[in-house]
Amino acid sequence: MPTAKAYAAFSADSALAPFVLQRRDPLPQDIRIGILYCGVCHSDLHQARNEWNATTYPCVPGHEIVGKVLEVGRSVTKFKPGDTVAVGCMVDSCRTCPNCVDALEQHCEHGPVFTYNSPDPHGGGMTFGGYAESIVVDEAFVLRIPDGLDLAAAAPLLCAGITTYSPLRHWKVGAGQRVGVVGLGGLGHMALKFAHTFGAETVLFTTTPDKAEDARRLGADEVVVSRDPEAMARQAGRFDFILDTVSAPHDIDAYLNLLRRDGTLTLVGVPPQGVQVMPFSLIGGRRRLAGSLIGGIRETQEMLDFCGEHGIVCDIELIPIQGINDAFERMLKSDVKYRFVIDMATLNGESSGGR
Amino acid sequence: MPTAKAYAAFSADSALAPFVLQRRDPLPQDIRIGILYCGVCHSDLHQARNEWNATTYPCVPGHEIVGKVLEVGRSVTKFKPGDTVAVGCMVDSCRTCPNCVDALEQHCEHGPVFTYNSPDPHGGGMTFGGYAESIVVDEAFVLRIPDGLDLAAAAPLLCAGITTYSPLRHWKVGAGQRVGVVGLGGLGHMALKFAHTFGAETVLFTTTPDKAEDARRLGADEVVVSRDPEAMARQAGRFDFILDTVSAPHDIDAYLNLLRRDGTLTLVGVPPQGVQVMPFSLIGGRRRLAGSLIGGIRETQEMLDFCGEHGIVCDIELIPIQGINDAFERMLKSDVKYRFVIDMATLNGESSGGR
Repeated sequence: MPTAKAYAAFSADSALAPFVLQRRDPLPQDIRIGILYCGVCHSDLHQARNEWNATTYPCVPGHEIVGKVLEVGRSVTKFKPGDTVAVGCMVDSCRTCPNCVDALEQHCEHGPVFTYNSPDPHGGGMTFGGYAESIVVDEAFVLRIPDGLDLAAAAPLLCAGITTYSPLRHWKVGAGQRVGVVGLGGLGHMALKFAHTFGAETVLFTTTPDKAEDARRLGADEVVVSRDPEAMARQAGRFDFILDTVSAPHDIDAYLNLLRRDGTLTLVGVPPQGVQVMPFSLIGGRRRLAGSLIGGIRETQEMLDFCGEHGIVCDIELIPIQGINDAFERMLKSDVKYRFVIDMATLNGESSGGR
Repeated sequence: MPTAKAYAAFSADSALAPFVLQRRDPLPQDIRIGILYCGVCHSDLHQARNEWNATTYPCVPGHEIVGKVLEVGRSVTKFKPGDTVAVGCMVDSCRTCPNCVDALEQHCEHGPVFTYNSPDPHGGGMTFGGYAESIVVDEAFVLRIPDGLDLAAAAPLLCAGITTYSPLRHWKVGAGQRVGVVGLGGLGHMALKFAHTFGAETVLFTTTPDKAEDARRLGADEVVVSRDPEAMARQAGRFDFILDTVSAPHDIDAYLNLLRRDGTLTLVGVPPQGVQVMPFSLIGGRRRLAGSLIGGIRETQEMLDFCGEHGIVCDIELIPIQGINDAFERMLKSDVKYRFVIDMATLNGESSGGR
């Protein structure tokens, strides 16, 4: 079996450290990918530190993967060595349940095989993610990166991108609509780019007034400081759709009341304590509170192609793999604009310089 | 101005007692209605006892009104004396905002004029409801009762009926769907009748096993005791739509997890403390939590006509007006199958006998 250098968490309270993992021997439909870049998602930190109480150690995080095809199995038809490809949050699913048949593998009734910390139905053991020099994935779960995108900055599209693109598409956000984005982080900054590009009048809600300039550059037509009750009151009943990307506890009713009749607020952040909702916030205006989880493989490819057409990538800070523990600490302080991406060449001691 | 005998609450902690109110002189578009029957909604109790902190005394509750036209203004075209008519929760609205134009007067941007305890834009003072011998209402807010329905049993259609009919229609409940109804009270028993008549496979969730037989008679194909964790687990992921009629605190996540992908749970009950939701209950399965508020005038007429075609009325217990305070106490104990209706003839000391 091929080995790969990687960084792993070995326990909930230890720093990530070098590790050599084994990938499965490529099966006929498999692709072996040399990883160039991997984005750093907040989920990586949650899993590495066992904050969801489900981590198997060693754990190699990473599900925002961009790389080059090194090798393809004999049945592979979609890719050839040298192609620029990507892998997101899932590497397999049952493919036969109604949700998989509808190309919504993230809702596979048997549970998708996640890119890391999932039992691997082919190779045995647990899946290992993208903080590594290579990965082996069934071609059905490999995406194509369109030409012309900065590869490092494209990596977070695989989670932050699709997580915001999918609900905006599902709820048909577009021209003539007024759309709110709550929170300006890894998810929020992509939501601004997409909502703006889809033609919606886009408003950022943030607790941090000094994010206003950046928000406008990213696509916001207006910025509302959510701690200002008068500013919030002026927005009442004016939104067709709000995408809430915040994982910290916050007042959901305050945002529900900004929706028009039949408007929808979709959660993509996951406040671990849950959210409290007053029924009249939903009953008045016949409003909806919904959720959304990444996106299916077909929609992820659609999102990447859309980004290729419109030149959309993430705003990132490139780091060497040796900086991952510092990056985790900075993420906890929201000190990142707006996503860390690991330059995987640094696994071999190469400098993190050019892109 | 015409006077009318009525029953009113005079303070939050006093029993309802006789009162003589004044109705406005009928305006050109007004109809004066002699009230035959008025249903007793839980909202009546909340308002009478100032539990929503917004009651003006004296307060005459009642918004499930059925009666006969006594007199019509000179501009009235839709009704004539002797017609059997009804009045629900609203007696006016601005009629020009987008929601009114869309025939959703319950979401009037300026607030509808509710049948009681609302400022009356025509007559001054506050509106008085249906615990009275007559009422004066603009013809645009008067409904027609189709022939053939028991008039006493039709009264609660004006609130309990439309409150459950509207969300089932809005979310397109019908044949081929599996639909849950949470709670078997005034609202729940109507939800069973409508969901069943719309052709859905209908399941009642109740904490009370001995309601099973009644639920089946009312239209349930299956009854699940919600306190039985194994019974609940067997329902996971099986529902297209759930209508939650419960106003007491309860576990919403337990019901969200019974929805299929893209399923919706709509709240029509209003737990005063709010509801707690874990985001993964919505994010997994891309589910929706929604709300619904009574229905517009056009849809209320549609509902009444549907009930006329299908012979649908409420299951009621007819009471004299002198029994209203006892009825309130029994409602608090859920000791009613399934709605009290006041025989308004008893205001004049006539016995509550025939219907």
